[in-house]
Order: sequence, then structure tokens, then C-alpha cells
Amino acid sequence: MSEQLNKRIFDELESLVLIDPHTHINPHSAASTTLADIMGYHYYTELAHSAGLAKESIEEPGIDPKEKVGRLVTQLGDLDNTIQLSWLMDICSEFFDFQDETITESNWEYLYDTAAEKMAQPDWEQQVLKQSGLERVFLTNDFDDPLEGFDTKLYIPCLRTDDLVFHLTKNETRERLGKATQVDVGCASTLREAIGELFEHFTSNGARACAISLPPDFSPVSVTADQVDSTVRSLFAGDDLNSEESKLVSQFVFWTLAEYCGVYRLPFDLMIGVNRRVYEAGVYQGQDLYDKRTSLIQYKELFNAFPKVTFPVSVLTSTSNQELVSYSWIFPNVVINGHWWYSNTPAFITFDCKSRLEAVPKTKLIGYYSDMYKLEFALPKFRMYRRVLANVLATDFVINRNWSEQRAIELGKLVLRGNVETIFSC
Amino acid sequence: MSEQLNKRIFDELESLVLIDPHTHINPHSAASTTLADIMGYHYYTELAHSAGLAKESIEEPGIDPKEKVGRLVTQLGDLDNTIQLSWLMDICSEFFDFQDETITESNWEYLYDTAAEKMAQPDWEQQVLKQSGLERVFLTNDFDDPLEGFDTKLYIPCLRTDDLVFHLTKNETRERLGKATQVDVGCASTLREAIGELFEHFTSNGARACAISLPPDFSPVSVTADQVDSTVRSLFAGDDLNSEESKLVSQFVFWTLAEYCGVYRLPFDLMIGVNRRVYEAGVYQGQDLYDKRTSLIQYKELFNAFPKVTFPVSVLTSTSNQELVSYSWIFPNVVINGHWWYSNTPAFITFDCKSRLEAVPKTKLIGYYSDMYKLEFALPKFRMYRRVLANVLATDFVINRNWSEQRAIELGKLVLRGNVETIFSC
Amino acid sequence: MSEQLNKRIFDELESLVLIDPHTHINPHSAASTTLADIMGYHYYTELAHSAGLAKESIEEPGIDPKEKVGRLVTQLGDLDNTIQLSWLMDICSEFFDFQDETITESNWEYLYDTAAEKMAQPDWEQQVLKQSGLERVFLTNDFDDPLEGFDTKLYIPCLRTDDLVFHLTKNETRERLGKATQVDVGCASTLREAIGELFEHFTSNGARACAISLPPDFSPVSVTADQVDSTVRSLFAGDDLNSEESKLVSQFVFWTLAEYCGVYRLPFDLMIGVNRRVYEAGVYQGQDLYDKRTSLIQYKELFNAFPKVTFPVSVLTSTSNQELVSYSWIFPNVVINGHWWYSNTPAFITFDCKSRLEAVPKTKLIGYYSDMYKLEFALPKFRMYRRVLANVLATDFVINRNWSEQRAIELGKLVLRGNVETIFSC
Repeated sequence: MSEQLNKRIFDELESLVLIDPHTHINPHSAASTTLADIMGYHYYTELAHSAGLAKESIEEPGIDPKEKVGRLVTQLGDLDNTIQLSWLMDICSEFFDFQDETITESNWEYLYDTAAEKMAQPDWEQQVLKQSGLERVFLTNDFDDPLEGFDTKLYIPCLRTDDLVFHLTKNETRERLGKATQVDVGCASTLREAIGELFEHFTSNGARACAISLPPDFSPVSVTADQVDSTVRSLFAGDDLNSEESKLVSQFVFWTLAEYCGVYRLPFDLMIGVNRRVYEAGVYQGQDLYDKRTSLIQYKELFNAFPKVTFPVSVLTSTSNQELVSYSWIFPNVVINGHWWYSNTPAFITFDCKSRLEAVPKTKLIGYYSDMYKLEFALPKFRMYRRVLANVLATDFVINRNWSEQRAIELGKLVLRGNVETIFSC
Repeated sequence: MSEQLNKRIFDELESLVLIDPHTHINPHSAASTTLADIMGYHYYTELAHSAGLAKESIEEPGIDPKEKVGRLVTQLGDLDNTIQLSWLMDICSEFFDFQDETITESNWEYLYDTAAEKMAQPDWEQQVLKQSGLERVFLTNDFDDPLEGFDTKLYIPCLRTDDLVFHLTKNETRERLGKATQVDVGCASTLREAIGELFEHFTSNGARACAISLPPDFSPVSVTADQVDSTVRSLFAGDDLNSEESKLVSQFVFWTLAEYCGVYRLPFDLMIGVNRRVYEAGVYQGQDLYDKRTSLIQYKELFNAFPKVTFPVSVLTSTSNQELVSYSWIFPNVVINGHWWYSNTPAFITFDCKSRLEAVPKTKLIGYYSDMYKLEFALPKFRMYRRVLANVLATDFVINRNWSEQRAIELGKLVLRGNVETIFSC
Repeated sequence: MSEQLNKRIFDELESLVLIDPHTHINPHSAASTTLADIMGYHYYTELAHSAGLAKESIEEPGIDPKEKVGRLVTQLGDLDNTIQLSWLMDICSEFFDFQDETITESNWEYLYDTAAEKMAQPDWEQQVLKQSGLERVFLTNDFDDPLEGFDTKLYIPCLRTDDLVFHLTKNETRERLGKATQVDVGCASTLREAIGELFEHFTSNGARACAISLPPDFSPVSVTADQVDSTVRSLFAGDDLNSEESKLVSQFVFWTLAEYCGVYRLPFDLMIGVNRRVYEAGVYQGQDLYDKRTSLIQYKELFNAFPKVTFPVSVLTSTSNQELVSYSWIFPNVVINGHWWYSNTPAFITFDCKSRLEAVPKTKLIGYYSDMYKLEFALPKFRMYRRVLANVLATDFVINRNWSEQRAIELGKLVLRGNVETIFSC
């Protein structure tokens, strides 16, 4: 009975057309063109490398896409237990009619060619959107993205600010800022003005969020323009900053972003907990890890200072999930955002999902985002989440709390879609 | 079969009459008089506020109880997924014959009036105790509570010591101490004497525990009267202390409390992990959160120094649960106490309960306390716990370990009631 | 259906003959001779002590084995809920035909005598190995173990290095090192040479791993012989070191061990997170606990510096499990090793096992080791693990991911045995 119940709820959730509130889609090339686009996703390259495939083999300069896939296939057998590989299998069966249980050295070429043929169809992108039940897709745009040449109603811009906060000490970043804003930055006040230009540009092009990923030890504090002015002047004069000065500038820029989020009424997505380049010899995008010793108490000052800014918060680890639940339960401006990266596997999603649904106002829960780089991944990732969500709704609400199925399904739809519309005004 | 098994065990646990080993009941006004007493519980005000209701609306000075309930009702729809709201629904159906699925703007007035009528019955308190299966209820008394005017056999005093440890630097606290003890405190030795008077007063009035809640960064260490004497003299002379001096006094008072717990054979309830006033603009009692970066290793010196004092320990976060299990497994004087506050929801209780029941001597587990402010909450909160406990006993003991149902039920009754009697000698 | 599925998978896993990749077996006395050997295991002495039995009673000098068991039996009733006691019951029923539900003061003597009779059989050790399905057993040898007088094909040596890294400041350790290696250590270079001798000795006697347990705050860093030379000279000249100097020597020795693991191609087992002697008055081996505030980020430099050394990593707490999953998912040289000590109970194993099997290449998972001191414990401990593993395979793979039973069983066998062979080359 319980399995049938799960299935009925899952089917209802599967029928829902979605808005994906966080991806890394390139709107100029949203869908894949070869299987290498799909199997080049860092989950496969890093897992294949972790299982023994040399980085040099995976990332050989100028390698042909088909050759790259062939090399990765040699290692897939070691990964077939992972949920990440199940996403790949789902993609292959859903989009390319692939029916084999595994991808092997004897069947991959046929798969590659079939996929290439499908992907070459002129409406492939639309096919994928339709088959995946995707209505709109949030992007993650560099701050100097012109936001031109794509439909911003379908692909919703989002201002990504990591470079501004953590890499302004690089010449390149400062040059990009000047070029993008046409502001001649030389002091804290003009730096703030330039950042304001970015918000103007993004919101006038339909942006619905500002976003940043943050290291475990980051603690935002208020830094005024006066406090940082001489440091900003030094920086833009080309001087090197010491680590204290760099930190001060980071804090100032971050605080300024939060202020503009208030002015422009943009939610500020915080993705908390990643250390970059921990495994320095890893493959592209497969080098980042974390230190679980982090706490949302580090954001106390921020959450108190900006009651009018909504902070959709993602945490990298399941050990931070309870803090996220508690902080969202108490702070009106903190909402919970999806299941991120190293916590995006069923065991962690299940536990985190259960604890969220039972303790946080239902209007403050953004169930899931795909985080995808290519459109084909929305289907298997959301399906994984919908399966977990259906089980949680069946067990914790219908069985344990005696809810009607319909009521449970409504709750599922709210966290899957309704809250995305409300929280991001889209 | 498994669902029927769960139900049979649950029914047996439900039939047990309980002693509630930790509450915030006011014995002079133990039951509610209007629905505002119930819906004014911080869980509802803070969740309604978190979902969007203004603090000013909830806490308007002089607001009529019925008006307050009416305002809270406007937000309840956003919270109906939470387990906290399920407690409210249980109260309304069990005590006030309310049968609707939700409380809405169209049915709340009828509910309010029905409840008021019921609560106006002269024996309402006794009705609630009986219907809830409550035999005795532990209190949380201010250190200067006269402990008069109520039945200390039914409402068992407990010496709450937060003010002494963390707020002795306030004039008001020192004045209250002097008044309560009639000791003219001026040095470390008289401070210790005054604290001794409190223990004398409480134990002669039937107190069965000393209790304190502690911030995540607190680490008790031995501080002798000699070490702190000059600082105590300054303090009681009216001087301001710096943070180091304040900390020293806190440590001294805390250590002194532990010593008296040994002398008077009182268990010392430690509730570890809360930071007060994190969300400064929050509603009353809805401002506290935490930093999960805390460890029971901070209590190493304490647990070693007082082998004869029993420490029933509560932790605020499920990420501290494994430490609690391990420390109770090793230290004879550390016992596990309930599921506290932010960990008091089924997902956390389930996992924490399973890990405790399988690794700690069964005589060292206090299953649950309600932490309630009004009597009506014991029923739904204990029921939530009993449901989880029944499932854990059915799955982990009857099914997985082949125990008889009767043996599993006995284990359940021990952690629900038997251990409360033994550990608190009541 | 699901229970039958679990059972079928469990039976298949039970039929597998194993290599136990980490134990504390003494190969000269591998099996027990009386029930006191079994009930003297620290799990029982520490739990009985935790439940109220005096240390003096348990550890009375010269106490007769039967008398000791009799005393422990008086406390067993308080522990019968624990999984640790279920191991004991399994041993008694499997090896000694004991059929009672509990061990009590009225039946223990019969059990003791029956067991003694069985254990007195000359082939008892072989009986236990056979009945337990054990083919080979890894040891934990002191660095100065002569490794003589036993079959190193059956009992595989492993170089345990805690003393070298953390206790070289003791005279005794330095004397043992000199005696074992015949190297006259007086400087960093000769210290390194002596350590090299140990690796030569161990690997020439069939050692398959180097191992160490580490405190929560340990962070390995590269220390060169030059940096530490004068300190090592002082130490071996008999001078006392301050804590900074001691730490430097520890770091140097640890780094040197990792270097030799590379040279001799030995996996380096890291068992991360234990604080020794936290409960100072505890029974033998029942004094150690931990500080959960530790992170694998502390091992960043090590994992990067030794890409050719395989590090099978155990963590003491389930709150570190997600880090272990993530680090093993990213670093090719980090593999996951079993469920250690305070995390070796079903609630933690279940969650940790699920999260590992779904996110880490299957070739990088060492499912379990017994950590036993006496051979009789392999059977119940591995059975506990196999039961959990069977449930996870049934639910997460056969039911949720639609795998065939056979495929799920193959995955189970790989983590139970296949990976032990591959990773330790045995």
C-alpha cells in the first residue's frame, strides 16, 4: 500500500511543470551537442579521476569529444553504484532511447552516435525543455555579462558576485568592472557606484536574484565606505593588499551587495561552505571541498541588518542542515534553498527534506534546484528529488500525520514550484 | 504487520501515566485560561512571525487575548506543515472537541469560545492532568522563588541557575540573591554561603534537580574562592567587571553549584548549546539560536571532578547527539535527557532515539520531557515522542533483534517513566 | 516482500568468506580461553562501569576470571538494550549453544563452564575461524614486534605507529626503537633511517598496511629533516621538549611514515578523531572520547603531497562521515574504511553506509572491519554490518533504483571482500 501511495504522489509531482531556480546554463548553448557535453560534467570527470583515470587523459588539450567519452567509459564500471551515474543512465534512456543497464566499452559508440544525431535536431533545446517539464531556468551570470542575445523570460538572469567579493584584488576583475559599468572606480564611493550600475543593468534585464558562494570561514560584517576608502584607493591605484586589507574590501563589497539587494528588492542567494582548490591536482571543477566547522551564527549580523532582504540559503553539508532549519524557523528573511552539491544525494536529501518540511513554515522552502550546466540534467536530478519528496510526503504526512493525499501533494507542489514564484517574484 | 505492531506498542506506551521531568509550568497558573495562552506559546508566535506576521502585531501592548489569537490565525495556513502546529491541532481536538482539519479565519472564533468555556471550568487543571496521564510535573524555578502556595508533591521544584551564573553582574540579580537568602554577600565565601542557602531552601521544599542552560562556548573549569575573591568583592562593591572577570565569576558560581549538587545529592541538568538574543528583533522567546561548533569535551573537567553528581544532559542540536551518546556510554555520571527545542521534531528525535537506545545502558536514558509552559502541551508532545519511540522499538528491537513485544514495551516504559523516578529520586 | 528480499541478500552476504582488514588480535593467543576474555572486552567493562559497577570491582588485581565474569553479570541487565550486548548474546548462542534470552545471575555459571570446555578444545581457534568465515585477519602490531612465531599469511602484520608519532618523547619508546632497529639514533637523519628499518622489517614479513590513530586536532604538515634536526638531537640526548618541539617531532615522524608508505607501497590507515584518557578514572580502554570539531581539511596538505599513497580513512564520528564521503569522492588516494568504534552501531552504520554507497566509486569502499581483540567477535560484528548492508542494498538499489538482486549482491561482496584484496594487495 505504501509503495503505491508513494507512486501516486510521485506521479502527481512528476506532472508539474517547473521553474529551475539555480543553474549554470549558458543560454547561448543551453543543451548539449555531444555526449561529451554530458559526460564532461565535473561529476563524471572527477569521479572517474577519483577511481583512477589520469587527469591528463581526461583533459588532454584538443581532445576529440568522442575520444574523451571513450576514455571516460573505461572507468564508468567503477562508478555505476553512484547516484550521479544514475542521472547519466536516466538521461540516456529518456532522451536517447538507450535501454542497456550499463554503458560499456562495447555499447558506448552506438550511444554516442545516437545521441549526436538527436542533439543535432534544430529544436533539440526545445525538446529537452518540454520533455523535462521546464518552463523557466535561472542562470548564474558573470557580473559583466551583457545579458544579450537570449530570451530573459525563459532564461532568467542572476547576478553572480563571487568575483567582486573575493577576486577584486585581481587586475582582471577590476578591469572587467570598469568596462562593464563605465565607472572610473578610484575610491569606496565610486566602487559602490559601479556596483549599483551592475544592479541597474541586471534588474533592467529581468534578473531575479543576486548570488554568491562563500567559504566556510566567511563572516559578513558591516564595513562602511569611510572605513575602507583608503584601502580601495590603494587597490585601484594598483597596490598590492595584505590579507587584512583584502578581507576588508571583501567585507565592504559583500555588505554593499546586500544593501543593493534591499534597494532593488532582489533575493540574495547565499551558498555557504565551499573551499576552492583543496585538491589542487584535480580535474576542472573537481578540486573544491570544505571544512564542516562553519556556522550560520557567522551570519547573525547580516540577517539582523537586512530584514527586508530575502536570503535563500544553501548549505554544503548535511551537518549544517539543522542550523539552516532553525535559522529559517526564526529569521523571517532566511529561506531554505535546495540541496547543494555534496549534499545532493538521496541519503542526505531524505534526512534534510524531512527535517525541513516538519519545522519551517511551508512558504519558506525552496525544494530543489538542478545546479546544472546542461539542460539535459534537470530531468534526472529533479526526478531524484521528486522521488525522495514523494516518499517523505507519503510517510511523514499521509501515514504518520493522517493527511489526505491531496493535501500532501499540494505541499509538494508548493515547495517544488509555488515558492519559487513567490520568493523570486517570477 | 509492522504498522499493527507499531500501533500495539504505541497503545501500551500511551497508557502509561507519566512524570514530566522538565517544564516551565507556573504552578500558580498551570493550565490555560484562553486559547491565547496556548497560541501565545513562542513556537506559534515565532513561526507566524517568521512566515511574515509583524512582531508589532503579535506583541501590541494591551492587546486583547481574542484579538491576538485572531491575528495569529491569519498566518497559520503557512505553518500547517509544521509538527508544532500539529501539537496545536491535537490540543484542539483532544481538549476542545475541535474536528476541522485546519484553523482558519472562518472557524477560529467558535474554537476560541468553546475553549474558553472549557477552561473556565473550576477543575480544568485537574481535567488536563488526568486526560494527559500526568502524575507529577517538574518546574523550573527562579532561584529566589519562595516555593509557596502550591503542592510540591505534584509540582516538583527545580532550581534554575542561569541568572546566578550568567547575570550576577546585574544589580538586580545580586539584590534578589541577598533578599532570598538574607546573606550579606561581600566576598567569595559569603557568595558560596548564599548559594548554599538556596540549595537548603530548595531541597527542603522537595526540589529534585538543579538546572541551567549554557551557551555553546561555555567550558566549566574549577575556580576556587581564593582565585575569585577580590573580583567578587569588587562586584558586590558595585564595580563593573570586564569580560575576563565576569567569566571568572561565572565559572566560580557554576563550579560552586556543582559542589552543592554533590552535597545535596541533586542531579544537575545541563542544557547545552543556546545563544541568547541572536535575532534581536524577534518575538518574545523567539530570538535564541546557536553555534553548532560546540563539544562535550568542554565538560571533561567537570565530569571528572564530580563523579558523585549525576548530570542529565540535553543538547540543542542533533549534530551533538553522537557525542552525548558516547559521553553517556563512558561517563557513569552522564545521563541523556530528552530531545530539546530545535531537536524536538520527529526527524531528529527518530535518529537520536535510535542511536541512544542501541548504545547506552538503558537505565541512563530519560526519554522525554515536554518543556511546556502550559499543561495542555504535555499530551501532544509526549504523544509525538511515544509515536517515534513505538516505531523505533518495533523496528529496531522486535523486528531487527527479534525481541518479544513485551520486552520492547518494558524498555519503552523504562525510558518514559522508570528512569525519571530513579534518576531524580521521585 | 521487502523483508524476504532483505533476507535473501543477507544470506548471500553471510555466505561470503572474509578477510578482516583491521583487528587487534594477538596471533599468539587469537581465540579466547574463558568467557572472561570475551566479557573483558572494553565494551562490556566500560558499559557495566557506566551503568554503575565500580572500576575497582572490575579490575581488582589478581581476580579470578570466573569471579570477574560473575561480577560483570550483575550489571548486564542494564545493558541488554545495547547492540554491544547483542554481540555477546550472538557469540554465546553461536559458539556455546546458549539459548536463553539473557545472561543472568542464575544461568551464567553454566554458560561459563560450557564455554570453557569448548575453548579448551585444541582446535578452538580453527573452529572459530571456520565458523566465522574468516580467511585472513589483519593485525595491529607494535613497531618493535618481532613478527615471529605465527603464520603471517593467516595473520597479516600491520605496522601501528601511534607510539612513534605521539610518544617518542618517552624514554621507553626511544629505547624500543633503538633495540628494534639496531640504529643508533641521534639526529633527524638517523631517526628517518630507523623508521626505514621498521618498514623493511614489516614488509619483509608480509605487512600490508601502516596504521595510526589520531587526535581531533592533529594536522599533518611537511617537516623536513633540516627543520627538526636540532630538536631530534636534543630529544635523543635526553633533553625534555616543550610542547612546540614535541609537536614538531610528531609532525616530522608522521610525514616520514607517509614517505615510507610511498616507498614501500603500503596503504596508510588513518583513524581520525580520538582523544585519549578523557575519562581518567575509567576502566582499561574505556577512557577515550573525542571532540567532534575536527575536519578532513586538516589533511589537505597530506593528501595532496602523497598522490601515490593510498589512505584508507576511518572517522570516529558520524558527523565526519559526509566529509569522508566527499574527500573520497574527490581525492583518488582517499578510500573509506569501515565504521569505527563510537560509530559502529546500526543507526550510524545505516546512515553512513547509505551515503557512501550512493556517492563514492564502489572500488573505494572498504565496508567493514571488526576491530576485535578476540576472534569470537568477528562473527557478530560482521553479521551486524551485513544485516545493515543487506537492507541498504535491498531498499536503495533493488527497490529504489530497480537493480537486479544479483547486481546488488555483487556490490555487497565487493565492499565486503573484493576491495580489501585490491586495496591491501592481499
